[in-house]
Amino acid sequence: METKRAGRMAEAKPSFIRESLKYATDPSILSFAGGAPDENLFPSDALTKASQEIMKTQWREVLQYSITEGYIPLRKQLIAWMSKLGVQAELDELIITSGSQQGLDLTAKIFIDPGDTVIVERPTYMGAINAFKYYQPRFVEVDMDEDGMLMDDLEEKLREHPEAKFIYTIPDFQNPTGRVMAKDRRMRLVELARQYDVLVIEDSPYISLRYEGEAIPPVKHYDTDGHVVYLGTMSKTLSPGLRIGWVVATKDIVRDYVVLKQASDLSTTELAQRMTSYYLDHEDLDAHIVALNQEYRKKRDAMVEACRKYFPSNVRATYPMGGLFLWMMLPEGYDTLEIFQDSLKTERVIFVPGDTFYPYGGHPNTLRLCFSTTSAEKITQGMERLGRVFTKALSKSN
Amino acid sequence: METKRAGRMAEAKPSFIRESLKYATDPSILSFAGGAPDENLFPSDALTKASQEIMKTQWREVLQYSITEGYIPLRKQLIAWMSKLGVQAELDELIITSGSQQGLDLTAKIFIDPGDTVIVERPTYMGAINAFKYYQPRFVEVDMDEDGMLMDDLEEKLREHPEAKFIYTIPDFQNPTGRVMAKDRRMRLVELARQYDVLVIEDSPYISLRYEGEAIPPVKHYDTDGHVVYLGTMSKTLSPGLRIGWVVATKDIVRDYVVLKQASDLSTTELAQRMTSYYLDHEDLDAHIVALNQEYRKKRDAMVEACRKYFPSNVRATYPMGGLFLWMMLPEGYDTLEIFQDSLKTERVIFVPGDTFYPYGGHPNTLRLCFSTTSAEKITQGMERLGRVFTKALSKSN
Repeated sequence: METKRAGRMAEAKPSFIRESLKYATDPSILSFAGGAPDENLFPSDALTKASQEIMKTQWREVLQYSITEGYIPLRKQLIAWMSKLGVQAELDELIITSGSQQGLDLTAKIFIDPGDTVIVERPTYMGAINAFKYYQPRFVEVDMDEDGMLMDDLEEKLREHPEAKFIYTIPDFQNPTGRVMAKDRRMRLVELARQYDVLVIEDSPYISLRYEGEAIPPVKHYDTDGHVVYLGTMSKTLSPGLRIGWVVATKDIVRDYVVLKQASDLSTTELAQRMTSYYLDHEDLDAHIVALNQEYRKKRDAMVEACRKYFPSNVRATYPMGGLFLWMMLPEGYDTLEIFQDSLKTERVIFVPGDTFYPYGGHPNTLRLCFSTTSAEKITQGMERLGRVFTKALSKSN
Repeated sequence: METKRAGRMAEAKPSFIRESLKYATDPSILSFAGGAPDENLFPSDALTKASQEIMKTQWREVLQYSITEGYIPLRKQLIAWMSKLGVQAELDELIITSGSQQGLDLTAKIFIDPGDTVIVERPTYMGAINAFKYYQPRFVEVDMDEDGMLMDDLEEKLREHPEAKFIYTIPDFQNPTGRVMAKDRRMRLVELARQYDVLVIEDSPYISLRYEGEAIPPVKHYDTDGHVVYLGTMSKTLSPGLRIGWVVATKDIVRDYVVLKQASDLSTTELAQRMTSYYLDHEDLDAHIVALNQEYRKKRDAMVEACRKYFPSNVRATYPMGGLFLWMMLPEGYDTLEIFQDSLKTERVIFVPGDTFYPYGGHPNTLRLCFSTTSAEKITQGMERLGRVFTKALSKSN
């Protein structure tokens, strides 16, 4: 039998990154392809204690159905957390989601009809492309430089597509480039959103992972009339396996997330919500993040250093001041998918070819490297091996 | 600002049942409106132990990202569980979902384009209507009797709508009616599915909660060529808060669930998956279900008995041989929403007016009663009070 799928399924293919997790379990392969936090840095003792206390004292609530909006004490703690970042919210302006991936999916479900325009950074997070594409939007891409989205290009795109549903941005240590949107651009972004009456979807999983420089407030900090929807997550600071994300938006918009979440999975696993809440109550997440950042800074330094040392000089790389990623651009004409195959075969080192970060592919001369899951020592070794592959590839004329 | 929502959001409204959870926390109100299992029957000690063991020994895997398909040992255990029910499956024919609500949402997302026909029982589970409606199908309803869907009516609907994407059924102790689809109808359903080359979505959360009579194999047991998709859940046997459901289908179809789940929430909370797996490894779920059914049988008996004793004789009720629900039909012309308001005010007893179980509403003379969350004693008391409300309402001419 061949039951006809919905039209959106023409877009269906497994993601390159999720598929490459297969390689990740092969110990002979050194992977810079992931995007996971370092599991050695998980606060496992504190979260084990949290699970024990919660199951002993609150099993009744944990094991029963619970409200779609999320565990109220956790929502209050996240409101306090957001306040420290410079974003004020009321209880009914925040909903817990099953990871921020669900935030992305519900965002698309609320706003996108087939053919609607959504504006994204070029390049952008492939998980967002993946979440959005099943609602069949047209992706319009805005160019970036080292300070994030180019506001002139954005304005041009808004003029061309005034009916755009939203502008999707990862302003802090962007996935895949590691770039940060400058403060003046954040202010300009909010101005443009207001002027064109279009929403900004601010996805900020890496905001706390800053290794140098001064913190910049979220785009939503500059939002005075509800044009910015903020997506947060515990995946990069506490644990991705708990699947705890959240959305901050106006009451009206949060209500829409609630009705759609109700239809999608009823609620987020209560045990994971309460473990997170217990952790925030009994531990110092700020101190944990300081410790995290010390470790990630070493890894970042090792990778940046190795880029300079082992890679051909005509390979450009971003300098990430935080987050988990570094982005490389080869001269035009080279194909990083080919280099990937060669690297896998000869040096057993893998990365993500860049075309996966563009909604319509292309840009085969780019790639993403993740430095979070490997030790600084292994990063240096792996980058030396990878440098050999790239030196060989770029020594051929293209 | 008023950003235009997608067309599907015209359907958005919070569900009556989820909203009525507000009443559930008011101790002065006796609720037959829920659909939750009795939390006093949760195997809390075993699940607490499971959480402790898992966090101590497997925190690394639990706290990290994990595969979309679900924890492999749990999938194998569920395959063994399905085998006992009479359904054989391979590893790549089963995916873990975040509750079976996610199974319903992804089912709609895979198959439904706006305007597509889906065939449902009349009445049917409102959570399924809720999951499907955001994909904007046309609902075609098939009448039922005490033995489930009427096959002649189904065949007529299939002839009228040969392009239907799927037939959605809850064959065991249906929500909301408590009815069971007879064995010969299950066989006929599979025949019709094959003949019209249409899928059957078999949603069976209550299959194990049988209080009398002989078990009937799932519809999928009779499926020889992949026309039936089976949705299972741990919510009614183990715990709804863990959010563990699963889908059994052909490899091709399961692959579609995997790519859409990846886009929707990446994966189901690993701790909840491993706790479930640990429970299945170390405890006897069959024995737990026997104990559950003893308790639920008492509640069911109390409610059936009270119906006969306290309700007007022209109120018809189903006789549920399992599950959590009993369905009532008043003579035409009465409105159970009005009676709901009166009952809430005068007797502080609530139920679910039946119109919520029809995709296009109507049938105001019907209602659902849930007997799982209240003790047998309180059921008798509450039904006596509710009987007064109905006796009063039906003594008025309509």
